[in-house]
Amino acid sequence: MSGQDYLYINAIRKKKIERTPIWIMRQAGRYLPEYQAVRDKYDFITVCKTPELATEVTLQPIRRFGFDAAILFSDILVIPEALGQKLEFMENHGPKLSPQILNEKDVNRLSIEGLEEKLSYVADAVRLIRSGLDNRTPLIGFSGSPFTLATYMIEGKPTRNFKHIKTMMYKEPQRLIRLLQLLTEAVSRYLLMQINAGAQAIQIFDTWGGILPPHLYNQYSGRFMKQIVERLKISSVPITLFSKGGIELLWQLKDSNADMLGVDWMTDLADARQTVGGFAALQGNLDPTVLYGSKEIIKKEVENILQVFGRQSGHVFNLGHGILPDIPVDNVQFLVDTVREMSTKIHS
Amino acid sequence: MSGQDYLYINAIRKKKIERTPIWIMRQAGRYLPEYQAVRDKYDFITVCKTPELATEVTLQPIRRFGFDAAILFSDILVIPEALGQKLEFMENHGPKLSPQILNEKDVNRLSIEGLEEKLSYVADAVRLIRSGLDNRTPLIGFSGSPFTLATYMIEGKPTRNFKHIKTMMYKEPQRLIRLLQLLTEAVSRYLLMQINAGAQAIQIFDTWGGILPPHLYNQYSGRFMKQIVERLKISSVPITLFSKGGIELLWQLKDSNADMLGVDWMTDLADARQTVGGFAALQGNLDPTVLYGSKEIIKKEVENILQVFGRQSGHVFNLGHGILPDIPVDNVQFLVDTVREMSTKIHS
Repeated sequence: MSGQDYLYINAIRKKKIERTPIWIMRQAGRYLPEYQAVRDKYDFITVCKTPELATEVTLQPIRRFGFDAAILFSDILVIPEALGQKLEFMENHGPKLSPQILNEKDVNRLSIEGLEEKLSYVADAVRLIRSGLDNRTPLIGFSGSPFTLATYMIEGKPTRNFKHIKTMMYKEPQRLIRLLQLLTEAVSRYLLMQINAGAQAIQIFDTWGGILPPHLYNQYSGRFMKQIVERLKISSVPITLFSKGGIELLWQLKDSNADMLGVDWMTDLADARQTVGGFAALQGNLDPTVLYGSKEIIKKEVENILQVFGRQSGHVFNLGHGILPDIPVDNVQFLVDTVREMSTKIHS
Repeated sequence: MSGQDYLYINAIRKKKIERTPIWIMRQAGRYLPEYQAVRDKYDFITVCKTPELATEVTLQPIRRFGFDAAILFSDILVIPEALGQKLEFMENHGPKLSPQILNEKDVNRLSIEGLEEKLSYVADAVRLIRSGLDNRTPLIGFSGSPFTLATYMIEGKPTRNFKHIKTMMYKEPQRLIRLLQLLTEAVSRYLLMQINAGAQAIQIFDTWGGILPPHLYNQYSGRFMKQIVERLKISSVPITLFSKGGIELLWQLKDSNADMLGVDWMTDLADARQTVGGFAALQGNLDPTVLYGSKEIIKKEVENILQVFGRQSGHVFNLGHGILPDIPVDNVQFLVDTVREMSTKIHS
């Protein structure tokens, strides 16, 4: 089966589809008992760096739910590590990168040399997952956006106010731009490596784009993602940009040449379709906490989303953010069944 | 001097003004050394509940910066406390309300009886602040929105995913609605008490409105604020609704009859003016972290905001969220001076 026959890719290409494809951000994760079983034996970073383990957890949700796309199990912070920062994951405290990137010297110390070699375990994982998927399900590769990566690299640890990156932005904007340029190069090379290893689609996560005021969004995040999209266009894999931050940011990505734009759950999907649906396919956007709810309400919210596109192609069903770790697995199964049944009826 | 001669109120009423008024959300707060000096001696809740102390800290930023409006020093969680929850402030861990409101019984246990009596220390503070302000600066009273208060009451403590309120909303929506109705009554009576005691304007903080998907915003937050606005219209004080959550929520407040809408810093002020500027005055919206920046960039960002209204009235300058505790006081002075000078020039 060739790439163009995948439901996920056909929906992005706005080709005729028999139902709406579905996958879930963080679908390989803690809400799955089989994932927990792996994590009981290996820590997070070991799973990321061991192709066999990354493959196993990538395939788990495909086996259980038959999602219409698999996504490489990895972490966006492997790039800062490859550039020279020390990466640690503190249980229940999130990731830590050290030393923080604050002054000119810190930026200069980062080195892109040998990036692909340092991240070859990711290429190995991609190859192994592809052979495990046996051409039935396409594999999405991914990266954080330059701005999102810079946020983690500058803050060093989870933050509420993003003081350090904001201080740099409002005090030494040229320093931040230099870092973002370096990251644009690193992300481009990293994603090309994934594509060469067999990734059949790419998603760039701009998780922290929404901490930028809209008038600065393109300057610090949007334009660098656009540069990456241009670089990746030498391949033919579809590219999705997912920026958490509402309709005003989405609007600024309309000229990005991305094949699909991710819509967060704080944005109205019908508004998004009206605003940027002519420029790209859309992915999303169920509020992840709907999965704490009753089956009746899950169904109603799914219907709400599916009716936005109706019989039209150009939509991939997903949550509007990653699935939460304590979501009942039963509700995920119910969601998948509901999207399948309901969208099959709509498209028939 | 009568109410209609205040710069802040004239700007809301879209009357001719000689410059743009400015005040800052959380202007009485930890970034001020004189506030810290008070807090070294008294804990937060004692300051809220002692009219003399509340008055002192309310007046501090007026003395130092001559802001164009004072805002009552208090906390939005005094309402849940008056309704029967236990309120504690843990140093560096935020507020705690117990027991959480989760089931039907928890809702039934809340009692609105004697609300004004229990909160009479707030009315006392309003009277004392008014006499301290000596009619030179108007006093803004405030409350949290019903939805925002419900969020704190249900979660009990700071949260990232808002699991409990979302679970109630997606599982037992009628229970949440009942709680919101009770809070609408409580907030209305609380604000009328503040107005009767001398508050010359009102602001309702819908801090957590943005955790609602836009299609559920009116149902769980917007419509209850609108009900409160209607109730307060028996007085003539201007009412501001501040909902953090972007242009799509702002649009849903256009028919609220509020005199002013607060614009958060993640929303473009020019977009906001185009969208809802015909319905209400606008307040905002400098990114609070701009105050970590250089004077050159602070000036540029202020100019950006002031140019949106130009010589037109209908704008009150403010941050797009509360001021952060570690902002240099010098930068606040520079901001105030810049807004005054620049807007005086624009309006001359």
